[in-house]
Amino acid sequence: MNLYSGLINKLIEELESLPGIGSKSAQRLAFHIIGMPEEKVNRIATTMMDARHNVRYCQCCCTLTDKEICPICSSPNRDKTTIMVVETPRDLAAYEKTGRFEGVYHVLHGAISPMLGIGPNDIRLKELISRLQGDVKEVIIATNSSLEGETTAMYISKLVKPTGIKVSRIASGVPVGGDLEYIDEVTLLRALEGRIEL
Amino acid sequence: MNLYSGLINKLIEELESLPGIGSKSAQRLAFHIIGMPEEKVNRIATTMMDARHNVRYCQCCCTLTDKEICPICSSPNRDKTTIMVVETPRDLAAYEKTGRFEGVYHVLHGAISPMLGIGPNDIRLKELISRLQGDVKEVIIATNSSLEGETTAMYISKLVKPTGIKVSRIASGVPVGGDLEYIDEVTLLRALEGRIEL
Repeated sequence: MNLYSGLINKLIEELESLPGIGSKSAQRLAFHIIGMPEEKVNRIATTMMDARHNVRYCQCCCTLTDKEICPICSSPNRDKTTIMVVETPRDLAAYEKTGRFEGVYHVLHGAISPMLGIGPNDIRLKELISRLQGDVKEVIIATNSSLEGETTAMYISKLVKPTGIKVSRIASGVPVGGDLEYIDEVTLLRALEGRIEL
Repeated sequence: MNLYSGLINKLIEELESLPGIGSKSAQRLAFHIIGMPEEKVNRIATTMMDARHNVRYCQCCCTLTDKEICPICSSPNRDKTTIMVVETPRDLAAYEKTGRFEGVYHVLHGAISPMLGIGPNDIRLKELISRLQGDVKEVIIATNSSLEGETTAMYISKLVKPTGIKVSRIASGVPVGGDLEYIDEVTLLRALEGRIEL
Protein backbone atom coordinates (compact mmCIF):
# COMPACT_ATOMS: atom_id res chain seq x y z
CA MET A 1 0.00 0.00 0.00
CA ASN A 2 1.39 3.41 -0.88
CA LEU A 3 0.63 5.35 2.25
CA TYR A 4 3.46 7.81 1.79
CA SER A 5 5.02 9.53 -1.20
CA GLY A 6 7.56 7.63 -3.30
CA LEU A 7 10.77 8.67 -1.59
CA ILE A 8 9.44 8.09 1.92
CA ASN A 9 8.17 4.63 0.96
CA LYS A 10 11.49 3.81 -0.63
CA LEU A 11 13.38 4.87 2.49
CA ILE A 12 11.05 2.82 4.73
CA GLU A 13 11.55 -0.24 2.50
CA GLU A 14 15.33 0.08 2.53
CA LEU A 15 15.41 0.45 6.32
CA GLU A 16 13.06 -2.52 6.75
CA SER A 17 15.53 -4.72 4.91
CA LEU A 18 18.04 -4.29 7.76
CA PRO A 19 18.13 -6.93 10.51
CA GLY A 20 16.09 -6.24 13.65
CA ILE A 21 14.16 -3.39 12.04
CA GLY A 22 10.47 -4.17 11.58
CA SER A 23 7.94 -2.13 9.67
CA LYS A 24 7.01 0.10 12.63
CA SER A 25 10.64 0.92 13.50
CA ALA A 26 11.41 1.52 9.85
CA GLN A 27 8.61 4.11 9.70
CA ARG A 28 9.77 5.75 12.90
CA LEU A 29 13.38 5.81 11.70
CA ALA A 30 12.44 7.16 8.27
CA PHE A 31 10.51 10.10 9.72
CA HIS A 32 13.31 10.75 12.17
CA ILE A 33 15.83 10.84 9.32
CA ILE A 34 13.64 13.20 7.31
CA GLY A 35 13.44 15.47 10.34
CA MET A 36 17.19 15.51 11.04
CA PRO A 37 19.56 18.29 9.94
CA GLU A 38 20.55 17.50 6.34
CA GLU A 39 24.23 17.66 7.21
CA LYS A 40 23.82 14.89 9.79
CA VAL A 41 21.96 12.62 7.38
CA ASN A 42 24.72 13.08 4.83
CA ARG A 43 27.33 12.28 7.47
CA ILE A 44 25.63 9.03 8.50
CA ALA A 45 25.13 8.00 4.86
CA THR A 46 28.75 8.76 3.97
CA THR A 47 30.00 6.85 7.01
CA MET A 48 27.98 3.81 5.92
CA MET A 49 29.45 3.88 2.42
CA ASP A 50 32.97 4.58 3.71
CA ALA A 51 32.88 1.74 6.22
CA ARG A 52 31.52 -0.70 3.66
CA HIS A 53 34.16 0.34 1.15
CA ASN A 54 37.21 0.41 3.39
CA VAL A 55 36.69 -2.21 6.05
CA ARG A 56 38.31 -5.59 5.30
CA TYR A 57 39.69 -8.64 7.08
CA CYS A 58 42.89 -8.21 9.09
CA GLN A 59 45.55 -10.13 7.18
CA CYS A 60 46.65 -11.77 10.40
CA CYS A 61 43.63 -12.50 12.64
CA CYS A 62 40.79 -11.99 10.12
CA THR A 63 38.88 -9.51 12.31
CA LEU A 64 37.31 -6.54 10.53
CA THR A 65 39.51 -3.47 10.32
CA ASP A 66 40.24 -0.50 8.09
CA LYS A 67 43.97 -1.24 8.10
CA GLU A 68 45.99 -4.09 6.56
CA ILE A 69 46.76 -5.41 10.03
CA CYS A 70 44.37 -4.65 12.93
CA PRO A 71 45.51 -2.59 15.96
CA ILE A 72 45.61 -5.67 18.21
CA CYS A 73 47.80 -7.75 15.87
CA SER A 74 50.11 -4.80 15.25
CA SER A 75 50.45 -3.85 18.94
CA PRO A 76 53.89 -4.66 20.42
CA ASN A 77 52.23 -5.14 23.82
CA ARG A 78 50.20 -8.19 22.87
CA ASP A 79 51.47 -11.70 23.46
CA LYS A 80 51.55 -13.31 19.99
CA THR A 81 52.11 -16.79 21.43
CA THR A 82 48.56 -17.05 22.78
CA ILE A 83 45.71 -17.05 20.26
CA MET A 84 42.07 -16.88 21.34
CA VAL A 85 39.73 -18.23 18.65
CA VAL A 86 36.31 -16.53 18.48
CA GLU A 87 33.40 -16.72 16.07
CA THR A 88 32.82 -13.01 15.36
CA PRO A 89 34.41 -9.56 15.80
CA ARG A 90 31.70 -8.89 18.42
CA ASP A 91 32.93 -11.83 20.48
CA LEU A 92 36.43 -10.39 20.20
CA ALA A 93 35.08 -7.06 21.44
CA ALA A 94 33.35 -8.79 24.37
CA TYR A 95 36.69 -10.22 25.57
CA GLU A 96 38.55 -6.99 24.81
CA LYS A 97 36.13 -5.18 27.11
CA THR A 98 37.34 -7.27 30.04
CA GLY A 99 40.75 -5.66 29.45
CA ARG A 100 42.48 -8.73 30.90
CA PHE A 101 43.39 -10.84 27.89
CA GLU A 102 46.87 -10.00 26.67
CA GLY A 103 47.15 -12.44 23.78
CA VAL A 104 45.88 -12.05 20.23
CA TYR A 105 42.73 -13.32 18.55
CA HIS A 106 41.60 -15.28 15.55
CA VAL A 107 38.15 -14.54 14.15
CA LEU A 108 36.49 -17.46 12.34
CA HIS A 109 33.49 -15.50 11.00
CA GLY A 110 31.08 -18.28 11.83
CA ALA A 111 31.03 -21.80 13.20
CA ILE A 112 30.76 -25.24 11.63
CA SER A 113 27.10 -26.14 11.20
CA PRO A 114 26.15 -29.26 9.25
CA MET A 115 22.51 -28.18 9.64
CA LEU A 116 23.12 -24.90 7.79
CA GLY A 117 25.63 -26.51 5.42
CA ILE A 118 28.57 -24.55 6.85
CA GLY A 119 31.68 -26.68 6.70
CA PRO A 120 35.27 -26.13 7.90
CA ASN A 121 36.15 -24.49 4.59
CA ASP A 122 33.43 -21.87 4.96
CA ILE A 123 35.00 -20.29 8.03
CA ARG A 124 38.49 -18.83 8.50
CA LEU A 125 40.10 -22.05 9.68
CA LYS A 126 42.82 -22.34 7.03
CA GLU A 127 44.08 -18.92 8.13
CA LEU A 128 44.21 -20.13 11.75
CA ILE A 129 46.20 -23.24 10.82
CA SER A 130 48.73 -21.20 8.85
CA ARG A 131 49.32 -19.04 11.94
CA LEU A 132 50.36 -22.08 13.98
CA GLN A 133 53.68 -22.33 12.09
CA GLY A 134 55.15 -19.56 14.28
CA ASP A 135 55.99 -19.84 17.98
CA VAL A 136 52.41 -20.21 19.22
CA LYS A 137 52.21 -21.78 22.69
CA GLU A 138 48.45 -21.93 23.33
CA VAL A 139 45.21 -21.84 21.38
CA ILE A 140 42.24 -20.87 23.56
CA ILE A 141 38.95 -21.82 21.92
CA ALA A 142 36.27 -19.28 22.80
CA THR A 143 33.56 -20.22 20.32
CA ASN A 144 30.00 -20.02 21.62
CA SER A 145 28.63 -22.63 23.94
CA SER A 146 26.07 -23.68 21.28
CA LEU A 147 25.96 -26.92 19.28
CA GLU A 148 27.81 -25.20 16.41
CA GLY A 149 30.34 -23.59 18.75
CA GLU A 150 31.06 -26.92 20.46
CA THR A 151 31.40 -28.75 17.13
CA THR A 152 33.84 -26.11 15.94
CA ALA A 153 35.81 -26.30 19.19
CA MET A 154 36.10 -30.08 18.86
CA TYR A 155 37.20 -29.78 15.24
CA ILE A 156 39.86 -27.18 16.00
CA SER A 157 41.17 -29.12 18.96
CA LYS A 158 41.64 -32.20 16.74
CA LEU A 159 43.52 -30.09 14.19
CA VAL A 160 45.78 -28.35 16.68
CA LYS A 161 46.64 -31.19 19.09
CA PRO A 162 48.96 -33.09 16.69
CA THR A 163 51.14 -29.96 16.42
CA GLY A 164 51.95 -30.20 20.14
CA ILE A 165 50.53 -26.74 20.86
CA LYS A 166 48.39 -26.53 24.02
CA VAL A 167 44.66 -26.27 23.28
CA SER A 168 42.16 -25.06 25.85
CA ARG A 169 38.45 -24.24 25.96
CA ILE A 170 36.89 -21.43 28.02
CA ALA A 171 34.86 -22.77 30.96
CA SER A 172 31.13 -23.38 30.82
CA GLY A 173 29.13 -22.83 34.00
CA VAL A 174 26.85 -20.58 35.94
CA PRO A 175 27.22 -16.89 34.93
CA VAL A 176 28.50 -14.67 37.74
CA GLY A 177 25.49 -13.19 39.54
CA GLY A 178 23.26 -15.81 37.91
CA ASP A 179 20.38 -17.15 39.96
CA LEU A 180 20.56 -20.98 39.98
CA GLU A 181 16.82 -21.45 39.69
CA TYR A 182 16.72 -19.64 36.34
CA ILE A 183 19.62 -21.48 34.74
CA ASP A 184 19.04 -24.33 32.30
CA GLU A 185 19.90 -27.90 33.20
CA VAL A 186 22.71 -28.34 30.70
CA THR A 187 24.54 -25.34 32.15
CA LEU A 188 23.97 -26.62 35.70
CA LEU A 189 25.43 -30.01 34.78
CA ARG A 190 28.41 -28.36 33.07
CA ALA A 191 29.02 -26.24 36.16
CA LEU A 192 28.93 -29.38 38.30
CA GLU A 193 31.33 -31.30 36.04
CA GLY A 194 33.70 -28.36 35.91
CA ARG A 195 33.72 -27.80 39.68
CA ILE A 196 36.97 -26.56 41.21
CA GLU A 197 38.37 -27.64 44.58
CA LEU A 198 38.57 -24.78 47.07
CA MET B 1 36.66 2.26 24.51
CA ASN B 2 38.02 1.66 21.03
CA LEU B 3 37.14 -1.97 20.52
CA TYR B 4 36.98 -1.71 16.76
CA SER B 5 38.96 0.18 14.14
CA GLY B 6 38.13 3.83 13.50
CA LEU B 7 35.62 3.47 10.69
CA ILE B 8 33.68 0.68 12.40
CA ASN B 9 33.50 2.67 15.64
CA LYS B 10 32.37 5.73 13.75
CA LEU B 11 29.62 3.77 12.02
CA ILE B 12 28.44 2.25 15.32
CA GLU B 13 28.34 5.71 16.92
CA GLU B 14 26.33 7.20 14.06
CA LEU B 15 23.84 4.34 14.14
CA GLU B 16 23.53 4.59 17.93
CA SER B 17 22.43 8.20 17.60
CA LEU B 18 19.23 7.06 15.85
CA PRO B 19 16.09 6.57 17.95
CA GLY B 20 15.36 3.05 19.19
CA ILE B 21 18.84 1.78 18.34
CA GLY B 22 20.88 0.86 21.41
CA SER B 23 24.55 0.01 21.52
CA LYS B 24 24.04 -3.72 20.87
CA SER B 25 21.75 -3.18 17.88
CA ALA B 26 24.12 -0.54 16.53
CA GLN B 27 26.96 -3.08 16.62
CA ARG B 28 24.83 -5.74 14.97
CA LEU B 29 23.66 -3.31 12.29
CA ALA B 30 27.17 -2.01 11.64
CA PHE B 31 28.57 -5.49 11.04
CA HIS B 32 25.58 -6.34 8.89
CA ILE B 33 26.17 -3.24 6.78
CA ILE B 34 29.86 -4.06 6.41
CA GLY B 35 28.90 -7.55 5.25
CA MET B 36 26.29 -6.39 2.70
CA PRO B 37 26.99 -6.04 -1.05
CA GLU B 38 28.56 -2.61 -1.56
CA GLU B 39 25.98 -1.67 -4.14
CA LYS B 40 23.16 -2.21 -1.63
CA VAL B 41 24.87 -0.09 1.04
CA ASN B 42 25.30 2.71 -1.49
CA ARG B 43 21.63 2.44 -2.44
CA ILE B 44 20.42 2.71 1.17
CA ALA B 45 22.75 5.64 1.85
CA THR B 46 21.69 7.47 -1.29
CA THR B 47 18.01 6.91 -0.48
CA MET B 48 18.55 8.44 2.96
CA MET B 49 20.18 11.55 1.51
CA ASP B 50 17.62 11.80 -1.28
CA ALA B 51 14.67 11.53 1.06
CA ARG B 52 16.12 14.08 3.47
CA HIS B 53 16.84 16.49 0.63
CA ASN B 54 13.59 16.23 -1.29
CA VAL B 55 10.87 15.53 1.23
CA ARG B 56 8.99 18.62 2.43
CA TYR B 57 5.62 19.66 3.86
CA CYS B 58 2.61 19.44 1.54
CA GLN B 59 1.58 23.06 0.90
CA CYS B 60 -2.00 22.16 1.66
CA CYS B 61 -2.19 19.59 4.50
CA CYS B 62 1.41 19.79 5.83
CA THR B 63 2.05 16.05 5.60
CA LEU B 64 5.48 14.99 4.37
CA THR B 65 5.74 14.47 0.62
CA ASP B 66 8.20 14.77 -2.24
CA LYS B 67 5.75 16.86 -4.29
CA GLU B 68 4.45 20.43 -3.80
CA ILE B 69 1.00 19.03 -3.02
CA CYS B 70 0.65 15.49 -1.62
CA PRO B 71 -1.19 12.74 -3.56
CA ILE B 72 -4.18 12.86 -1.19
CA CYS B 73 -4.71 16.63 -1.45
CA SER B 74 -4.28 16.52 -5.23
CA SER B 75 -6.62 13.56 -5.76
CA PRO B 76 -9.96 14.52 -7.37
CA ASN B 77 -11.61 11.60 -5.54
CA ARG B 78 -11.15 13.02 -2.05
CA ASP B 79 -13.83 15.07 -0.35
CA LYS B 80 -12.16 18.42 0.39
CA THR B 81 -15.00 19.54 2.66
CA THR B 82 -14.06 17.10 5.43
CA ILE B 83 -10.69 17.59 7.14
CA MET B 84 -9.31 15.08 9.62
CA VAL B 85 -6.70 16.64 11.93
CA VAL B 86 -3.89 14.29 13.04
CA GLU B 87 -0.65 14.77 14.93
CA THR B 88 1.80 13.01 12.59
CA PRO B 89 2.12 11.57 9.07
CA ARG B 90 2.13 8.12 10.73
CA ASP B 91 -1.31 8.81 12.20
CA LEU B 92 -2.46 9.82 8.74
CA ALA B 93 -1.10 6.53 7.39
CA ALA B 94 -2.94 4.61 10.12
CA TYR B 95 -6.28 6.05 8.99
CA GLU B 96 -5.39 5.69 5.30
CA LYS B 97 -4.82 1.98 5.92
CA THR B 98 -8.48 1.58 6.89
CA GLY B 99 -9.27 2.70 3.33
CA ARG B 100 -12.62 4.11 4.48
CA PHE B 101 -11.97 7.78 5.07
CA GLU B 102 -12.70 9.78 1.92
CA GLY B 103 -11.92 13.26 3.17
CA VAL B 104 -8.56 15.00 3.43
CA TYR B 105 -6.16 15.45 6.32
CA HIS B 106 -4.30 18.12 8.20
CA VAL B 107 -1.04 17.13 9.89
CA LEU B 108 -0.12 19.23 12.93
CA HIS B 109 3.37 17.76 13.46
CA GLY B 110 2.93 17.57 17.20
CA ALA B 111 0.47 18.47 19.92
CA ILE B 112 0.20 21.32 22.39
CA SER B 113 2.18 20.44 25.50
CA PRO B 114 2.70 23.06 28.21
CA MET B 115 4.98 20.52 29.96
CA LEU B 116 7.37 20.37 27.00
CA GLY B 117 6.90 24.04 26.18
CA ILE B 118 5.10 23.33 22.90
CA GLY B 119 2.49 26.01 22.29
CA PRO B 120 -0.14 26.50 19.56
CA ASN B 121 2.40 28.37 17.41
CA ASP B 122 4.82 25.45 17.43
CA ILE B 123 2.49 23.13 15.55
CA ARG B 124 0.84 23.61 12.14
CA LEU B 125 -2.33 25.23 13.47
CA LYS B 126 -2.14 28.50 11.52
CA GLU B 127 -2.12 26.44 8.33
CA LEU B 128 -5.26 24.61 9.48
CA ILE B 129 -7.11 27.83 10.24
CA SER B 130 -6.26 29.29 6.83
CA ARG B 131 -7.79 26.20 5.20
CA LEU B 132 -11.15 26.87 6.89
CA GLN B 133 -11.80 29.86 4.59
CA GLY B 134 -12.95 27.48 1.82
CA ASP B 135 -16.14 25.41 1.82
CA VAL B 136 -15.14 23.09 4.68
CA LYS B 137 -18.14 21.36 6.31
CA GLU B 138 -16.53 19.29 9.06
CA VAL B 139 -13.29 19.16 11.03
CA ILE B 140 -12.71 15.73 12.61
CA ILE B 141 -10.13 15.91 15.37
CA ALA B 142 -8.10 12.70 15.50
CA THR B 143 -5.26 13.75 17.78
CA ASN B 144 -4.05 11.07 20.22
CA SER B 145 -6.04 10.22 23.28
CA SER B 146 -3.21 11.50 25.52
CA LEU B 147 -3.16 14.61 27.71
CA GLU B 148 -1.45 16.56 24.89
CA GLY B 149 -3.81 15.20 22.26
CA GLU B 150 -6.87 16.11 24.33
CA THR B 151 -5.55 19.60 25.06
CA THR B 152 -4.93 20.13 21.36
CA ALA B 153 -8.40 18.82 20.49
CA MET B 154 -10.00 21.22 22.95
CA TYR B 155 -7.97 24.15 21.61
CA ILE B 156 -8.85 23.41 17.99
CA SER B 157 -12.52 22.94 18.80
CA LYS B 158 -12.60 26.40 20.45
CA LEU B 159 -10.95 27.93 17.38
CA VAL B 160 -13.21 26.25 14.83
CA LYS B 161 -16.61 26.45 16.52
CA PRO B 162 -17.10 30.24 16.04
CA THR B 163 -16.77 29.74 12.27
CA GLY B 164 -19.91 27.61 12.27
CA ILE B 165 -18.08 24.58 10.83
CA LYS B 166 -19.01 21.26 12.46
CA VAL B 167 -16.26 19.95 14.78
CA SER B 168 -16.09 16.32 15.90
CA ARG B 169 -13.70 14.13 17.87
CA ILE B 170 -13.03 10.44 17.15
CA ALA B 171 -14.51 8.15 19.83
CA SER B 172 -12.57 6.90 22.83
CA GLY B 173 -13.40 3.45 24.14
CA VAL B 174 -12.47 -0.20 24.29
CA PRO B 175 -10.37 -1.27 21.26
CA VAL B 176 -12.08 -3.88 19.09
CA GLY B 177 -10.94 -7.33 20.24
CA GLY B 178 -9.68 -5.78 23.49
CA ASP B 179 -10.05 -7.82 26.65
CA LEU B 180 -11.84 -5.71 29.29
CA GLU B 181 -9.72 -6.96 32.16
CA TYR B 182 -6.53 -5.57 30.58
CA ILE B 183 -7.89 -2.15 29.75
CA ASP B 184 -7.14 0.85 31.96
CA GLU B 185 -9.85 2.50 34.04
CA VAL B 186 -9.90 5.80 32.18
CA THR B 187 -10.62 4.00 28.92
CA LEU B 188 -13.31 1.89 30.58
CA LEU B 189 -15.01 5.02 31.95
CA ARG B 190 -14.78 6.73 28.55
CA ALA B 191 -16.35 3.68 26.92
CA LEU B 192 -19.17 3.79 29.45
CA GLU B 193 -19.80 7.54 28.98
CA GLY B 194 -19.77 7.12 25.21
CA ARG B 195 -22.17 4.16 25.17
CA ILE B 196 -24.53 3.89 22.25
CA GLU B 197 -28.14 2.70 22.42
CA LEU B 198 -28.70 -0.49 20.48
